[in-house]
Amino acid sequence: MKIEQLVTQIRKKQSFLCVGLDTDLEKIPTHLLDHEDPIFSFNKAIIDATQSLCVAYKPNTAFYEAYGAAGWESLSKTLRYINEHYPEMFTIADAKRGDIGNTSTRYAKAFFEEMDFDAITVAPYMGKDSVEPFLDFADRHTILLALTSNEGAFDFQTKMVENKELYKEVLKTSKSYKNAQNLMYVVGATKASYLRDVREIVPNSFLLVPGVGAQGGSLEEVCHYGLNADVGLLINSSRGIIYASQGEDFAQVAAEKARELQSQMAQELTKFGQNT
Amino acid sequence: MKIEQLVTQIRKKQSFLCVGLDTDLEKIPTHLLDHEDPIFSFNKAIIDATQSLCVAYKPNTAFYEAYGAAGWESLSKTLRYINEHYPEMFTIADAKRGDIGNTSTRYAKAFFEEMDFDAITVAPYMGKDSVEPFLDFADRHTILLALTSNEGAFDFQTKMVENKELYKEVLKTSKSYKNAQNLMYVVGATKASYLRDVREIVPNSFLLVPGVGAQGGSLEEVCHYGLNADVGLLINSSRGIIYASQGEDFAQVAAEKARELQSQMAQELTKFGQNT
Repeated sequence: MKIEQLVTQIRKKQSFLCVGLDTDLEKIPTHLLDHEDPIFSFNKAIIDATQSLCVAYKPNTAFYEAYGAAGWESLSKTLRYINEHYPEMFTIADAKRGDIGNTSTRYAKAFFEEMDFDAITVAPYMGKDSVEPFLDFADRHTILLALTSNEGAFDFQTKMVENKELYKEVLKTSKSYKNAQNLMYVVGATKASYLRDVREIVPNSFLLVPGVGAQGGSLEEVCHYGLNADVGLLINSSRGIIYASQGEDFAQVAAEKARELQSQMAQELTKFGQNT
Repeated sequence: MKIEQLVTQIRKKQSFLCVGLDTDLEKIPTHLLDHEDPIFSFNKAIIDATQSLCVAYKPNTAFYEAYGAAGWESLSKTLRYINEHYPEMFTIADAKRGDIGNTSTRYAKAFFEEMDFDAITVAPYMGKDSVEPFLDFADRHTILLALTSNEGAFDFQTKMVENKELYKEVLKTSKSYKNAQNLMYVVGATKASYLRDVREIVPNSFLLVPGVGAQGGSLEEVCHYGLNADVGLLINSSRGIIYASQGEDFAQVAAEKARELQSQMAQELTKFGQNT
């Protein structure tokens, strides 16, 4: 998908919400466990209920791999379902891959060809030749981990490297990679002021922001520092939406939670003159 | 598997060779393509031919994911075959995973429970709570990326952080993680003198060393700087062994290449008094 198509969807739906499909058999409503593929049944219901309120879905691959080949099949089915029924949706494999060149090419093929994701999250530790094979794919997007929203982010990402924090060095260095126009970045919302610093380095890139809500970040602050002329933000919510109810009404309640976030996003877009 | 069992195998076989199973349908002998599961057929033949000469197998998950659920099933079958027929073998999922806490727990379950690997490679960028869920598993091993053997390693890993290179900061910090006794490290052999610096920080840990041979590192130098009282080294070779011949004799030629490395390793062990 081209960036312009994503931006068009955001303006049309007045939403830059990404719903995280971290689907866990121990947390989904028990009545689904009798289904042939409970993970797919759950995802399908969540997708049908929320698709008008969000612009992206982000399955985290760990939750599918935990069930082996069957889980991998549930992931493929989920992606095919989205692409067939809601082809305007931006799809992100939250896989946090990254390896030496010829191996990263394999991962890129797994997620961009074998499956048909628009984007994948990638870890930066192995540097240029671990990232560029993903960037080779036109109109596919590589979402590089810059600053994550977990406690361990402070182990290395905020350490000073050549007078700047490591995550800033990652942002800066990645801009010189071949096909850097296909880069987006993961930037956690635990401290919204980080987004201001990030925007100084990558003013035009899309940022995938976890950590709004449950992990404490404020949507208003994230928008204040993060919005740009193309909106430039995807804000993810996983558990706060998909597990808002564990009863038979789970999809309806998920839609209500998604609508709450979408309404706030519409307000922010209006405030920043992004509502047309 | 306990470390002591691995060390016992190394001394018995006079080998610390790890064979990388980077199995690629475009590179395996064409006569195997008629088999029901060509990837498994190839792996099985390589394993049967080399198992007396090595102590570990390391499938790189990217090569299996590239074929979707079917590839994931080939990986599972390969692992089951090793564990059933050669239970003394140390098995490493070269997956380079790492995510926030509850997600890393899922990955750990995928590789240590759903499949029954002894070890997994993990990327350090997200810090403590992305690594510790793997360390929770007793007698399973987390092989943290420290210094990789690719060109991109110099993007970030060798940058100075608090007066030391980032990879040294990773080594040092990781020693404070809970259950750090379950850590091993990936250390590339592109410059063997790096191993000397690594040994100053982690004298007792096992190191998984890629990059000997094809990528230019010398086995003798790696041993000079890397061997410790428990041997402490696993040296990986992938393509140099498994694709040494693409004819019908591929398994036999793979065994010859493995034997060459094993002989050199036996000499090094003798030289360092590790031959009993």
